[in-house]
Amino acid sequence: MIYLDHAAATPVSEKALARMLPYFSEQFFNPSSPYLPANHLRQNYEYAKGQIAHTIGAKGNDIVITAGATESINLAFTAIPALMNDICVGKSGEKSTKNILILEIEHPSVRATARALVENFSGADKNVKSPLELREIKVDKTGLIDLKDFRKKLDENTIFVSVSLANNELGTIQPLAEIAEIIARERTKRLESGKIIPVYLHSDASQALNLVDISVARLGVDLLTINSAKVGGPKGVGALYVGHGVKLRPLIYGGGQEVGLRSGTENVPGVMGFAEAATETKGHLSGNRKKYEKMRQILAKELEKSPISPLFLGNKKHQLANFLPVSFPGVDAERIIYKLEEKQVYLSTGAACAANKGAKSHVLTAIGLSDEEIAGSLRISLGVLNTEENAKEAGKLIVQAVSEETQRVSGGKQAQQIKSDGCGVQNA
Amino acid sequence: MIYLDHAAATPVSEKALARMLPYFSEQFFNPSSPYLPANHLRQNYEYAKGQIAHTIGAKGNDIVITAGATESINLAFTAIPALMNDICVGKSGEKSTKNILILEIEHPSVRATARALVENFSGADKNVKSPLELREIKVDKTGLIDLKDFRKKLDENTIFVSVSLANNELGTIQPLAEIAEIIARERTKRLESGKIIPVYLHSDASQALNLVDISVARLGVDLLTINSAKVGGPKGVGALYVGHGVKLRPLIYGGGQEVGLRSGTENVPGVMGFAEAATETKGHLSGNRKKYEKMRQILAKELEKSPISPLFLGNKKHQLANFLPVSFPGVDAERIIYKLEEKQVYLSTGAACAANKGAKSHVLTAIGLSDEEIAGSLRISLGVLNTEENAKEAGKLIVQAVSEETQRVSGGKQAQQIKSDGCGVQNA
Repeated sequence: MIYLDHAAATPVSEKALARMLPYFSEQFFNPSSPYLPANHLRQNYEYAKGQIAHTIGAKGNDIVITAGATESINLAFTAIPALMNDICVGKSGEKSTKNILILEIEHPSVRATARALVENFSGADKNVKSPLELREIKVDKTGLIDLKDFRKKLDENTIFVSVSLANNELGTIQPLAEIAEIIARERTKRLESGKIIPVYLHSDASQALNLVDISVARLGVDLLTINSAKVGGPKGVGALYVGHGVKLRPLIYGGGQEVGLRSGTENVPGVMGFAEAATETKGHLSGNRKKYEKMRQILAKELEKSPISPLFLGNKKHQLANFLPVSFPGVDAERIIYKLEEKQVYLSTGAACAANKGAKSHVLTAIGLSDEEIAGSLRISLGVLNTEENAKEAGKLIVQAVSEETQRVSGGKQAQQIKSDGCGVQNA
Repeated sequence: MIYLDHAAATPVSEKALARMLPYFSEQFFNPSSPYLPANHLRQNYEYAKGQIAHTIGAKGNDIVITAGATESINLAFTAIPALMNDICVGKSGEKSTKNILILEIEHPSVRATARALVENFSGADKNVKSPLELREIKVDKTGLIDLKDFRKKLDENTIFVSVSLANNELGTIQPLAEIAEIIARERTKRLESGKIIPVYLHSDASQALNLVDISVARLGVDLLTINSAKVGGPKGVGALYVGHGVKLRPLIYGGGQEVGLRSGTENVPGVMGFAEAATETKGHLSGNRKKYEKMRQILAKELEKSPISPLFLGNKKHQLANFLPVSFPGVDAERIIYKLEEKQVYLSTGAACAANKGAKSHVLTAIGLSDEEIAGSLRISLGVLNTEENAKEAGKLIVQAVSEETQRVSGGKQAQQIKSDGCGVQNA
């Protein structure tokens, strides 16, 4: 098997699993119970939280453990209703419509959350104007934020900005510190004009934790989402960094765990695994970066031997070292995937046609790819299961599949027609 | 170690853990990925969901997997905003205040969720009356629902009723089918009078799944919460049964997993473990019931030898077979717990003084216990780690601790005074 889809899922590391195991059947207590073994468990849990927080330059008390990145993102966005409640938009207080800014290439968990929020806020009465507006910030052809567009859309009514640290389809790394600086200037402006409405910066760093040296202070974020499953920890665990003074509203109420922000008995084994994996990954950041860059180079060199010139996507200067998104325009990427599957090479389309949805990737559309380029795009993401050898082998097999597919299509061109809806579905 | 706190946490069963293990590092794929091994994983996941659903007489499609019972409960309660949105309370449509009914002894996850909902609905403007009201249904001295009070509080404006199948402090089992029948009559009344506002019945069955033969159809519930960690599955997994026609609003938006109701990459190992544990437990229901009843009898008999007559709590006829909540009035239960801890006997107070909170149990208050009775109450919950032998031994050790404590208190009565705030804190 050659696995090229680490951005979708990554195996739990040996160390992480070993650290989890004692917590299933031996140290199984409820950390809130009043006796000694449960107290010990509580200590171990808090220590592990501290380790997770440490990988982003924070303290254990600064993070909230969740059941994954998606929940973390949703929790981050509760800053908005909490804030709207405080500033009484549309009620007795503030009258102007507030706005949220997200990057147009954000992951569905950011987009769907932002949209639902705006929709739920507007209430049932469709005649009443929503007190909340969603604005999408443009990106350039490499997926990099258009700072000019950002400056234009950020105004005195912006209360929340969400920009992923690295995009999940392109691997493009955003200039978070620069974005934070622009926001800081907006804050100063508000202070000077006597307005004290806050604006928070959230970043989804799910894809970046194992390759970028993250420090919340250096990035200047108020909220940061990280994910266990992407760094060799178990699925179903994530965390949200919450900066001082940021007020959230719980998504899940109950026993008051996680300082009241996320009730429910703690997933102790999951947190142990996350802590181990995050610590492990943090210790190998630069080594991994070099390793993946090398593999990527080897793979890319192979792809260049293809009969159709590969169009490498994303930003070469600012890209996660394990990402190699690529398009073979004119080829049906889904067919390539099925061909490679037979050879036990596993990768995904550039989410060009999200398997169960049949929709065109909003990311690839946003960076201005043609339908043909979108239909021919693959997302290659390297990781622990790759070596220089299998990266090279993968390159050869991808080129072979592309060649066969090109021949098939050109051979049957008169009889067949590629339906150009960007989803690569072929009509006979 | 003698563990008597299975209601708080239960070890993961050997079988459950064995079923989980391959899904951490081998079958680690993202079930939404487009290639064969991921498709297989999707099938295994759906099969496991079907197994979980089967234990409550439902189908896989009828349940939503969550990160635990607390999340399930919170998700169940989203039926309320979804409904309020539909019926436009306080907007152009309905004008009357709607109400939610919960049992006064419900778990904090139900109480806090219901309260937050009412509060969040009322909005920031404290002058505007909330369109939503929370009503608590009384219970009798055994913790059984007061059906008269329920009938009185259920009216044409009730839209949601939440009654746990078995209480987490007393083990008292509620007559769910009877409650459902009363609600059915209310529905008929509404239909006849031309009103079509729905009323949903939710039940938190977290404590009951391993001892009560649950069938959602027989219980007549619209929503039912179950929990992996209480039946020998891993922590951090739960499920919500959602009856046909019940409209919910997601708590967590994103990739659209779980039919759009709960986004986020599926916690595959967790669901595997839950499925195995739930199936295992369902196969041993009546055997377990008998086993725990016997152990409980043995333990209770020992407790009766105490110098202070034990006051057994809950409803003898309708009680989970593994629950033995008991009070030794005049004794400080917390001191008993610390004494027993030294002998490696682990149990909790009747949540009389929730360890980290220092508040009196609302359950024990609701059933009319005096402060002295509350301060002296222990929650014993039996389970897989118990045998007839260690149950008997536990009984002896508890009695010994109670005796010592009684002597200590009576010996120093002139010098000491028990502070009677129901939290057993002693002043010298």
